[in-house]
Amino acid sequence: MHDYAFIVEKIPVGVLGASGYAGRELSHLILAHPALELRFATANEQRGTALRRGGHSITYSSTEEAAFGEVALVFSALPHGASRSWVSTAMEAGARVVDLSADLRPGSGCGDVPYGLTELARDRVARASVVANPGCYATAALLALVPFARSGLMAPGSAVVIDAASGVTGAGNSPRRELLFGEVAEDFRAYKVGNTHHHLLEMRSVVSNSGADVDLLFTPHLLPVGRGILATITMTLGAPISDVLAPWRHHYDGEPFIEIAEEPPTLRDVVGRNVARMYATAVAGVRRPTLTAIVAIDNLLKGAAGQAVQNANLMLGLEEGLGLPR
Amino acid sequence: MHDYAFIVEKIPVGVLGASGYAGRELSHLILAHPALELRFATANEQRGTALRRGGHSITYSSTEEAAFGEVALVFSALPHGASRSWVSTAMEAGARVVDLSADLRPGSGCGDVPYGLTELARDRVARASVVANPGCYATAALLALVPFARSGLMAPGSAVVIDAASGVTGAGNSPRRELLFGEVAEDFRAYKVGNTHHHLLEMRSVVSNSGADVDLLFTPHLLPVGRGILATITMTLGAPISDVLAPWRHHYDGEPFIEIAEEPPTLRDVVGRNVARMYATAVAGVRRPTLTAIVAIDNLLKGAAGQAVQNANLMLGLEEGLGLPR
Amino acid sequence: MHDYAFIVEKIPVGVLGASGYAGRELSHLILAHPALELRFATANEQRGTALRRGGHSITYSSTEEAAFGEVALVFSALPHGASRSWVSTAMEAGARVVDLSADLRPGSGCGDVPYGLTELARDRVARASVVANPGCYATAALLALVPFARSGLMAPGSAVVIDAASGVTGAGNSPRRELLFGEVAEDFRAYKVGNTHHHLLEMRSVVSNSGADVDLLFTPHLLPVGRGILATITMTLGAPISDVLAPWRHHYDGEPFIEIAEEPPTLRDVVGRNVARMYATAVAGVRRPTLTAIVAIDNLLKGAAGQAVQNANLMLGLEEGLGLPR
Amino acid sequence: MHDYAFIVEKIPVGVLGASGYAGRELSHLILAHPALELRFATANEQRGTALRRGGHSITYSSTEEAAFGEVALVFSALPHGASRSWVSTAMEAGARVVDLSADLRPGSGCGDVPYGLTELARDRVARASVVANPGCYATAALLALVPFARSGLMAPGSAVVIDAASGVTGAGNSPRRELLFGEVAEDFRAYKVGNTHHHLLEMRSVVSNSGADVDLLFTPHLLPVGRGILATITMTLGAPISDVLAPWRHHYDGEPFIEIAEEPPTLRDVVGRNVARMYATAVAGVRRPTLTAIVAIDNLLKGAAGQAVQNANLMLGLEEGLGLPR
Repeated sequence: MHDYAFIVEKIPVGVLGASGYAGRELSHLILAHPALELRFATANEQRGTALRRGGHSITYSSTEEAAFGEVALVFSALPHGASRSWVSTAMEAGARVVDLSADLRPGSGCGDVPYGLTELARDRVARASVVANPGCYATAALLALVPFARSGLMAPGSAVVIDAASGVTGAGNSPRRELLFGEVAEDFRAYKVGNTHHHLLEMRSVVSNSGADVDLLFTPHLLPVGRGILATITMTLGAPISDVLAPWRHHYDGEPFIEIAEEPPTLRDVVGRNVARMYATAVAGVRRPTLTAIVAIDNLLKGAAGQAVQNANLMLGLEEGLGLPR
Repeated sequence: MHDYAFIVEKIPVGVLGASGYAGRELSHLILAHPALELRFATANEQRGTALRRGGHSITYSSTEEAAFGEVALVFSALPHGASRSWVSTAMEAGARVVDLSADLRPGSGCGDVPYGLTELARDRVARASVVANPGCYATAALLALVPFARSGLMAPGSAVVIDAASGVTGAGNSPRRELLFGEVAEDFRAYKVGNTHHHLLEMRSVVSNSGADVDLLFTPHLLPVGRGILATITMTLGAPISDVLAPWRHHYDGEPFIEIAEEPPTLRDVVGRNVARMYATAVAGVRRPTLTAIVAIDNLLKGAAGQAVQNANLMLGLEEGLGLPR
Repeated sequence: MHDYAFIVEKIPVGVLGASGYAGRELSHLILAHPALELRFATANEQRGTALRRGGHSITYSSTEEAAFGEVALVFSALPHGASRSWVSTAMEAGARVVDLSADLRPGSGCGDVPYGLTELARDRVARASVVANPGCYATAALLALVPFARSGLMAPGSAVVIDAASGVTGAGNSPRRELLFGEVAEDFRAYKVGNTHHHLLEMRSVVSNSGADVDLLFTPHLLPVGRGILATITMTLGAPISDVLAPWRHHYDGEPFIEIAEEPPTLRDVVGRNVARMYATAVAGVRRPTLTAIVAIDNLLKGAAGQAVQNANLMLGLEEGLGLPR
Repeated sequence: MHDYAFIVEKIPVGVLGASGYAGRELSHLILAHPALELRFATANEQRGTALRRGGHSITYSSTEEAAFGEVALVFSALPHGASRSWVSTAMEAGARVVDLSADLRPGSGCGDVPYGLTELARDRVARASVVANPGCYATAALLALVPFARSGLMAPGSAVVIDAASGVTGAGNSPRRELLFGEVAEDFRAYKVGNTHHHLLEMRSVVSNSGADVDLLFTPHLLPVGRGILATITMTLGAPISDVLAPWRHHYDGEPFIEIAEEPPTLRDVVGRNVARMYATAVAGVRRPTLTAIVAIDNLLKGAAGQAVQNANLMLGLEEGLGLPR
């Protein structure tokens, strides 16, 4: 619980694309945030209807009606491809931006927008006028990989296998037949098999920039649960290390939103919380030093809206954890 | 549908350990089997209660009461460790045995009992007096791996990553807190992380005997579904091949219980059916030739009771698919 | 298992509206039916794609292309309102019809089409050229109520409360937001509260024609399961009776698809089977003689496609249970 | 969000039976409560292990070790039958008590302990030294019924039908086979059919004391969800009323934890919140004036731990909603 007795005036912000699962989660966080005021929330198809949270509410407007000039910061949860031009519009009106789409992320060909993996980019985020908020799968994978990459521990030329599974809110709330309860329940499936998921772009770019020369092999899966991502990651090390958790402990010492666990985390450990819970162990019975890491996050919080608010708090000079469920 | 108009007398068989999920599935298959008669089904704790299926039923007896001398074949679905001695008792009484426990499988130190991965060991199974029925995870993994191993296509010294997820019936029906609906629903977890699952023994042994010099890295996961296993397997090849499905097509040509699919299979494709449905694709954007395979089976059918009946049919000279849902 | 060794030629049938959950179930039953041949299956939006079951398959055509003249019987699983005119077209072409829509059911104002609650209308069904197949909720409720109504046991002027819950396949497979996994899982809801569900028409009509002067109060609910209906029915009797099951036993003696149970049935008892499983008990601690009945059916089998095949078997002079899972 | 800047010292409380679902929820609420301090939490079987919530934790002790003399109030979440004597022990040591078991509720034969249906008994609760916290089903039913009973609107001699469904946390977390995921998922069942559930005692007692002469017929059901109760209630009125919601509006005007809804509430509307969400409508097509009410609560919050904290807040002179998620 945060002490916010002395915040006199809230900072106005807006949300573009507020009716999807991530945009709605974001709007809920802002409506309950002690230092932010939700000035507008756009959702073209649901224009005129209200979004409620506790005692607070806001009426959806169209993106065209967004009063960019009245807010200090804009969150864009617009679809990939549709976000970039609205980000420009918002910035031209003087607002800072946290973009939850893939449009500005590393590997997208969009110059050098800071990548908001908060714990690993805090200073750049704090100074940025625009931040590319990481994808949900990328958040889970990179929080595990970057400390090993930066420490030079990954075997050069080796392959990292990332098998990750997400709840259905990761697929959005557009009504598609394959997302019906009657199709998803009692099922489990891999999709975009063969390294074709677009989160690979940002993962590869960040791992490479962190100094590791490795291949990434990523297979996403769809789980019959509402929320949560669990990533199972196998990586080869250049040499055995006595404490496989040391790189994480070094990078995440004192981090309030990173939990290094004694046992493999499960979705229930993290759903509803803006944390990444991480576990790793050496693999027995193989000839090269190898470790398996398990990372669990709530795809809508640490994997999207929660991390976006974490970044916005930094950009606005607020305490980083303000308004975030831990 | 099979033509069984001319079967005059059914062959008597028995089931040991018939109250667990696998034993119950097995008993159901036998009660509906056109050529087998379920002479006894043992379940010490539920002795005296009845097991029903359609119009048929049988009353559970204790293992001590089993009339081994009256049956041609015994299925043992007893727990690991408890099965071996009863298998001996049954064999001494003249019965042939399909053992669903891990006690006699390759890697268990139990000599050279034929391993009942039916499609890959048909001749040995048909002649055997006792068959070790494969584990559920091992069935999914080995059906994918053995054809590549036998064809000499796997890169020597490489590591194969097997991330697999199973429905809860794979964990048995003993009442344990972590298997309660309130704990499993909306959750997903890895377990036995770091290559500690006992199915690794049979997987390693069979892959090695098939001629491949590779490491296996296996991480099992628990899914919030009742039935089904999905295995996501990443393997490195010694050289690129033009058709990644060729080794499977070669080994499984005409196999009624193997389906080579154009798209990644899902659990719903296979639950309730004694099939393995398999897909593979080359992985893009990596330096060594690599492929990802997805295999789906019903853990209680092709992964346990179904394959056991398939083996028993062979051992008894019956049509291999008799009584099996396809 | 049925002896069908001597069926030389299969009877050609067709399905209209074969891509919804009921139409698909129906097509699967027919593809596996020993005496029926699926000559056409229409689904305008999926025209040209194939429906598969086991080794059999059929390619969807449009309704306009249906070869009514080539089949002995047509099943219509078209939407309510759209079915009636195609039923006429089929009948004019000489086909008999089982209509799964509500268009011709009692209370619809459509004259006197036989209502296919099979066990209670066997003779009329067998002779009919067109049968109105009952709604899923109506099947569950009426199988419980009609024997009491016919026996004159229901208290005149009393109210019967029917609270029933259905799996999502009862709501169809059109992609609607409220049927997404992310909305249905971990939820439960009542709908059409206040006696506004259209199945009330056929329920009232049949109960009244069975001789009971009672009010019906029906509240449907949506369950987070795929299949199954459980109806909880409270009715007041005119006088106490010693054996509350006697009216059912009398009407359903020897019926293969009706199970009178010693304990309240659950969905798992009936899913995948064309049966109604029924339980009743006297209610303690109330001043008027009252009983609570629990009825479970698979909404797609006994509640739709299964009963439709049961009716078609009768109409075509086949054994009533042919091709139906029991 | 509450202003608690000036609470200098927290009030010490204890929890008996803190490892069940209700006791754990209660402990979580207290650990996060701004004005309560959790001095002890007992759980004999898990003695010595820690219960964590956010940054807070407490180590389970045995009930025998409970320091009753150090706390102002004790919550007992002990099993029915085991609670009563520990309540006495706590009271003798000077603590006030909120008892979540059935031991002291109306109809239990335990004299006149105030019944903590907070909104309807606020004054008695505030002054009480011990309060019997209502059962979960009883909370849902009575919040709907009591306003009608007190207003004299229920038809004398009529029967009220309460069909209610609960998530599995209502059944506790003892490992029982029928609560396994493999048994509960994709299932739905009625239990204690025929008016045999023990919550009927308190329901009847409270309805009767509220002035209504009616019979209650209650059938509970088990839902494949974790949390939540939905009650569907049918009641006959003595005469038609123009606004069926008037009695609720009158009794619950301004109540922060009661929501009178325009549409039938669903579990998702209330899970995670200490509210009852209620809807009612007149029933069409019946001869006597009848209404159907739908009430949704979170069984662990408004149905147990949340209401217990609401009562404790009142007893301790705190703001009633302190520490409760709304």
